[in-house]
Amino acid sequence: MISFKNDYSEGACPQIMQVLQETNEQQSDGYGLDPYCEEARALIRKKLGCENGDVHFFVGGTQANQTIIASVLRPYEAVIAVDSGHINVHETGAIEATGHKVLTALGKAGKVLPKEVQQIVDAHTDEHMVKPAMVYISNATEIGTVYTKEELQALRKVCDENGLYLFMDGARLGAAMSACDNDVKWTDYPDLVDVMYIGGTKNGALFGEACIIMNDALKKDFRYHIKQRGGMLAKGRLLGLQFQCLMQDDLLEKLADHAVSQAQKLQAGIKEKGYTFFVETTTNQIFPILDNTTMKCMEESFAFQTWETVDETHTAIRLVTSWATKPEAVEDFLHALPKVGK
Amino acid sequence: MISFKNDYSEGACPQIMQVLQETNEQQSDGYGLDPYCEEARALIRKKLGCENGDVHFFVGGTQANQTIIASVLRPYEAVIAVDSGHINVHETGAIEATGHKVLTALGKAGKVLPKEVQQIVDAHTDEHMVKPAMVYISNATEIGTVYTKEELQALRKVCDENGLYLFMDGARLGAAMSACDNDVKWTDYPDLVDVMYIGGTKNGALFGEACIIMNDALKKDFRYHIKQRGGMLAKGRLLGLQFQCLMQDDLLEKLADHAVSQAQKLQAGIKEKGYTFFVETTTNQIFPILDNTTMKCMEESFAFQTWETVDETHTAIRLVTSWATKPEAVEDFLHALPKVGK
Amino acid sequence: MISFKNDYSEGACPQIMQVLQETNEQQSDGYGLDPYCEEARALIRKKLGCENGDVHFFVGGTQANQTIIASVLRPYEAVIAVDSGHINVHETGAIEATGHKVLTALGKAGKVLPKEVQQIVDAHTDEHMVKPAMVYISNATEIGTVYTKEELQALRKVCDENGLYLFMDGARLGAAMSACDNDVKWTDYPDLVDVMYIGGTKNGALFGEACIIMNDALKKDFRYHIKQRGGMLAKGRLLGLQFQCLMQDDLLEKLADHAVSQAQKLQAGIKEKGYTFFVETTTNQIFPILDNTTMKCMEESFAFQTWETVDETHTAIRLVTSWATKPEAVEDFLHALPKVGK
Amino acid sequence: MISFKNDYSEGACPQIMQVLQETNEQQSDGYGLDPYCEEARALIRKKLGCENGDVHFFVGGTQANQTIIASVLRPYEAVIAVDSGHINVHETGAIEATGHKVLTALGKAGKVLPKEVQQIVDAHTDEHMVKPAMVYISNATEIGTVYTKEELQALRKVCDENGLYLFMDGARLGAAMSACDNDVKWTDYPDLVDVMYIGGTKNGALFGEACIIMNDALKKDFRYHIKQRGGMLAKGRLLGLQFQCLMQDDLLEKLADHAVSQAQKLQAGIKEKGYTFFVETTTNQIFPILDNTTMKCMEESFAFQTWETVDETHTAIRLVTSWATKPEAVEDFLHALPKVGK
Repeated sequence: MISFKNDYSEGACPQIMQVLQETNEQQSDGYGLDPYCEEARALIRKKLGCENGDVHFFVGGTQANQTIIASVLRPYEAVIAVDSGHINVHETGAIEATGHKVLTALGKAGKVLPKEVQQIVDAHTDEHMVKPAMVYISNATEIGTVYTKEELQALRKVCDENGLYLFMDGARLGAAMSACDNDVKWTDYPDLVDVMYIGGTKNGALFGEACIIMNDALKKDFRYHIKQRGGMLAKGRLLGLQFQCLMQDDLLEKLADHAVSQAQKLQAGIKEKGYTFFVETTTNQIFPILDNTTMKCMEESFAFQTWETVDETHTAIRLVTSWATKPEAVEDFLHALPKVGK
Repeated sequence: MISFKNDYSEGACPQIMQVLQETNEQQSDGYGLDPYCEEARALIRKKLGCENGDVHFFVGGTQANQTIIASVLRPYEAVIAVDSGHINVHETGAIEATGHKVLTALGKAGKVLPKEVQQIVDAHTDEHMVKPAMVYISNATEIGTVYTKEELQALRKVCDENGLYLFMDGARLGAAMSACDNDVKWTDYPDLVDVMYIGGTKNGALFGEACIIMNDALKKDFRYHIKQRGGMLAKGRLLGLQFQCLMQDDLLEKLADHAVSQAQKLQAGIKEKGYTFFVETTTNQIFPILDNTTMKCMEESFAFQTWETVDETHTAIRLVTSWATKPEAVEDFLHALPKVGK
Repeated sequence: MISFKNDYSEGACPQIMQVLQETNEQQSDGYGLDPYCEEARALIRKKLGCENGDVHFFVGGTQANQTIIASVLRPYEAVIAVDSGHINVHETGAIEATGHKVLTALGKAGKVLPKEVQQIVDAHTDEHMVKPAMVYISNATEIGTVYTKEELQALRKVCDENGLYLFMDGARLGAAMSACDNDVKWTDYPDLVDVMYIGGTKNGALFGEACIIMNDALKKDFRYHIKQRGGMLAKGRLLGLQFQCLMQDDLLEKLADHAVSQAQKLQAGIKEKGYTFFVETTTNQIFPILDNTTMKCMEESFAFQTWETVDETHTAIRLVTSWATKPEAVEDFLHALPKVGK
Repeated sequence: MISFKNDYSEGACPQIMQVLQETNEQQSDGYGLDPYCEEARALIRKKLGCENGDVHFFVGGTQANQTIIASVLRPYEAVIAVDSGHINVHETGAIEATGHKVLTALGKAGKVLPKEVQQIVDAHTDEHMVKPAMVYISNATEIGTVYTKEELQALRKVCDENGLYLFMDGARLGAAMSACDNDVKWTDYPDLVDVMYIGGTKNGALFGEACIIMNDALKKDFRYHIKQRGGMLAKGRLLGLQFQCLMQDDLLEKLADHAVSQAQKLQAGIKEKGYTFFVETTTNQIFPILDNTTMKCMEESFAFQTWETVDETHTAIRLVTSWATKPEAVEDFLHALPKVGK
C-alpha cells in the first residue's frame, strides 16, 4: 500500500540520518546549548538575512505554536486566525489551554484577508471583550495555498496600523518556497513577520521546527517559555544537527522541490483525466474530487485522507507528497486512476 | 574534555541507531498509531506484567510530568512532591502553568516520607485551601537514591488511606533498577503506583519516556491531553522503535547496569582517596565533596556540575555516567584526583 | 436624562434594602455558611421542585459562567455556545482563561439549534480537536428572546444523545419567565438542564446570581471551584439575604413582570409609530431600528445603547427596562419619538 | 453567642448603609464608570498623595490578589510570599490557577525578610526554574503584625536591586495604620510599593478592596484583567459609594481605631490574667494561648477560631475584632476568662 496520507510518514532524508550517525558518540551540552545548534542558528540567520534574529528549536508544530503565541500575548489578548487554521482546529485547544482566545476569520483559499483583520479589530472595542494582538498565518496554508508577497505586505500593513504582531507558521514553508506562484524570498521575511518558524518535520527531518524571532520586543526570556511548555529537548543537539544539515547546500529547498514537483505531477495528471479540485494548489498537498466509487476503488491500493464531502456522490480527498515520495508511486496512482466517465 | 555533566550528552545506543536507520524509509501512520508503537506497548505491558495498562510515549520528562499531572487533577487539586523534586524546582513552573499547586515535603535522602504526606493532607482541611490529590515521586530520585519496596508500599498505603494517586517519574528508572539496594521488580510496580513512566532519554535512547497508566480511572481520553500539551510527536514511530529496541533482550537493563557500575566505580574510587559525599548513592549519579582547589584543578580536564556549596572551602559536585561512559574516562578521573590531604 | 442603557443602573428593590438594613448588625458566619444562605437555598430548591439540588451564590454572571464551566470540563473539553453568547463575546475571554475553547453556532434569534449542536459534535472526531462536552445557553438570550419548552427539550435530547451537559445562564431568567411566549415552569428546569443560575443583579438585587446544580455528577467540591476563581464572598450573608427576599411572595416574578411589561409597552408603542425591529422580543430588552437623525435626537434626552448598524442611515438600538423603570419614563420616550416619516 | 471569629461577621458601618440607601434609586453607569467611583478614586489618590495612581475596585481580596498578580507576571514568572501568606495557603491555589508559582520564605513574625528575597532570587539562576518577579506582602500580616517603615524600605531596596515588583495586600491595612507600632504614613506608600490595595470588607464596608497601581508599567489595560477574572461588578457604584464614604472624615481610620483598640484591650486583659501569646500583635487580631479546658469552657459563650496546637494541653486561639465590636463583648470575654491557674 502506497501512502499519500501525509508528509511525515517516513523517517529523515539520508543526509540527516548520516550526520546523526556520525556524531552519535560525541559529547555535547544539552538543551540547545551545543555547537551544532549554534551553527544551525547562524545558518538560519544567514539564509534570512537577519543577523539579529533569535533562533530557537522545537520538536513539533503544536508545541511551537503554543509556546510562541503564549509568550507574546498578555492574558486578555487574542490571536486572529483563519477558520481552517491549524491552531483553531487541529491542536485540541492548545492555544486556549494557555488562556487565549482564537478569533476566526472566514478567509479566502485558506488565507486571512487584511480587511477581515481590520473588521475583527474594529469589533473589539472595550474591556468586555478580548483584545486582538496577533495574527497567525500558515504558509503554505492548511489547504496547500501560498501567500504572495503582496498579500503578506498587506497583512503587515494592517498589523502595523493596529498594533498587532504577525506570526507565520511555516510547518510547510519549504513547500511554499518551492511553489510556482511563490514570489517571496527568504530575505523578505524579516520585514514581513515578527516571528515565524521553518518546518523540518514535514520537510526531511525526523522532527524539528526552527523558530526565528525577528522583533526584539518578543525575544526576552524565550527559553523560559520553551522550558515551561515542555518543549526543551534534552539532547537539543539533535535539532541543531538536523537544521544544520537542512541549511547546507540548499538541502531544504531541494527536498521541498521534490515533494512539490511530485504533487504537481499528480495534480496535472489527475486534471488531465477530467477531475476537478476542491482547491487547486501549488504545493505538496492536492485536493482532487473523486466520485465515491472511484475513491473506494483507489483506497484499495493507496492510502490517503478524505477531506470533505462535496455532494452525495463525490468526495474531496487529500494527497500529500514528501521528500521521500517515489516517482513510481505517483505514476502508479495516475495509472490506476480511471478517466472521468470511464 | 571528558564530560560527567549528565546522562544525555551523547546520542543513542548503537542498537537504536541501527533500527532507526533500517526502518527509515518505511511508511507508517503518524502520532503513535504505527505498528512499532503497538509492539513497544505490548513489550512494556509484558515486562510490567500489566496486561491492561495503557502505554503512551512522550519525547521528554517535563512534558510527561506536566501532561500526566494535569490529566489527573481537578482544577483545585494539588500534587505533593519532595522539595528537591524535579517538578518543584527544574521545570520552570510547568505544573503551575497548568493551574496546579505543588505542595512540598522536606523528605529524607530525596524521598517523600509517608508521614509527611499524611501531615500535608491533614493540614488541608477545607475549600479555602487546595486539595492534595496526588503524590509525585522520582525513582531514582534527583539525588540518585532509590525507593525500596517497603518504602513504596508505605507510600501506597498512605495514598490509599487518603484517596491520593501515586505517580512515579522514572526518568532514571533504569538506574534505579540496576542499583544494588533495589528490591523492586518490574512486575511489582502495577500494585504500587497508579501511573509511571520509564525513561529512555537518560538510558540509551535519542529521546523518549514511556508512560504506563495502570489505574483505569486515569485512562480516559489521555491522547487528548498529550495533543493539547504539545506532546504528540508526528513521527511517533521514532518513539515506538526506540522502546521496542530497549525492551528487547533486556537492553534497557544492560545499558543501565553499565551506567550504574561506572558511577559506582567512581564513587568507590573517590571514597578510597579519602573524600566524603553529599549523599552516597547506588545509581548513576554521585555527589563527592571536593575542596575548592581540587575542584578547580579537576575542572580543567573534566566537565561536571557543582551541586551545592558545603562550606567556604568545599563544594559538592555531581558526576553522572551513562550507557556511553567509557571505562577509561572513569579511570582517568580517578587517576587525576589527588588523595585527600595530598 | 432617563437611561434605558441596561437593567443594572440602580440599586436594589426596596424590600432588599430593608432587609439588609434590618440585619446589618447581626453576626453570622462568612462564606455562605450563614442561616440566610441556608434559608435562601431551601426556598430556591422549593421553587424548582428540586430537593436535592445544590445551591451556590455568586456575585456576578461572568464569575458564575467561568466557575461553572471550568468546574465541569476536563482540560481538553469545550463548550458550545451561540455566536452572540455572553461567554463568547462579552467576558474578555474568561472561559478561555480557564483553558477551554468556546465552539460557536450561528443559532437563530440568539438561540442555539439542536442540529447545530449535532453538527459541531460530528465535526470533532478525534484527539487532534477539542471534545465538545457542554452546551451553554442564555435564557432570556442576549437579544431578549426566550426558549420554549419544546426547544429546551430538543436541546436536552441532543445533549443526552451526545453525552453533553446543558448549562443555562439565567442572568435574565426572571424576564424570560415573565415573557408572554414562555411556557416553561420553574419546576420544569430540573428535567431540562444540568446546571443553571437565576439572576439577581438584573432583577432587583444589588448583585447576585443563584446557581443550582441539578446533576449529581457536577456537585463534588464545587465550593473549592468558587473559592479558587475568587468568587467566594466574605459576607456571604448578603447573597443569602437578597435571594431569600427575592424568593418570598413571588418578589422575583413581580419585579420581572414590571420590567417586561414596561419594555413591551415601549415595543408596542414604537411599533405603532411605524418602526421596525432588529428582532422582536418578549422580555425586557427591545431592539427598534431608528433612522440616524431620529436616533441622534432621542439621544439628547434618553440614554441607550446602539446595537448594530443596519444600513447607512439606520441603526438598531437597545432599550432595556428593569424593576425600577418608571412608567413615566416609558411614556416620555414614546411621546418624544416621532412617527416614522414625520 | 458573641463572635470573635473574624472581622466580616456583620454588615457595613451605618454611614455606608445610609449612603447606599440614599442613592439607591439613582441611575448611573455600570462597571465602575459612575461618578461615585470617580470621586472615590480622587479621594484615594489624595490620601496617598499619588496623583497619577490608577485606582480600581474589587469585591474581595482573593479576586484582587489573583487579578493583580496575574496582570503583572509573565507566564514563567513567580511571586515570593511568606509561608503563611494568604495567597500561599488560603486561596485554594488561585494564583497557581492563573499559571504562576508562589515561592515561599519562612519569614519572621509573618513578615518576609529582605535577605530571604535575595536568597530566593539567587537560587533561581536559569530557564529551568521560574523567575521571581514580585514580592507579595500583607500589611497587617495574616498573624496581625505590622511592617515598619524601615522594613518596607529594606524590601523596596531588595526589590529594586533585583528587578522585582512589590505588592502589598492591604485587606487589613486600616488595622495596620491604627497599630501603635506603625510609623508609615499613607503618603509614604507610593515610594514603597508598586501596587497595593486598601481593604474595605474587613473595615466597615459590605465588601470592597481599593487597588492603587503606582507603577506606570503595571497600569496598561488593567480593566481587561479585572473583567477576565470575573471581578468587574455590574453595579460598580456600590464600590465607589462605599470607598467615597470610607475616605471622608477619616472614617476608615476611625473604624480601624475602634477595632484595634478593642483587640488591644482584649490582649492586655488576657495578658494580665497570666496568659501567654502565640504572637503579640498591635492590630485587631490577637492570638492568646489557652489551656484546652479553658478553651472548651470559653467556647460555650464565645465563637472564635483555634489557630494552632501548641502542645498536648494548650492551643493558640485567634480573637478578631472589628468596627462593630461592642465594648461589652470585650468586657464579657475578659470577665468570663479565668486567671491562669485558677
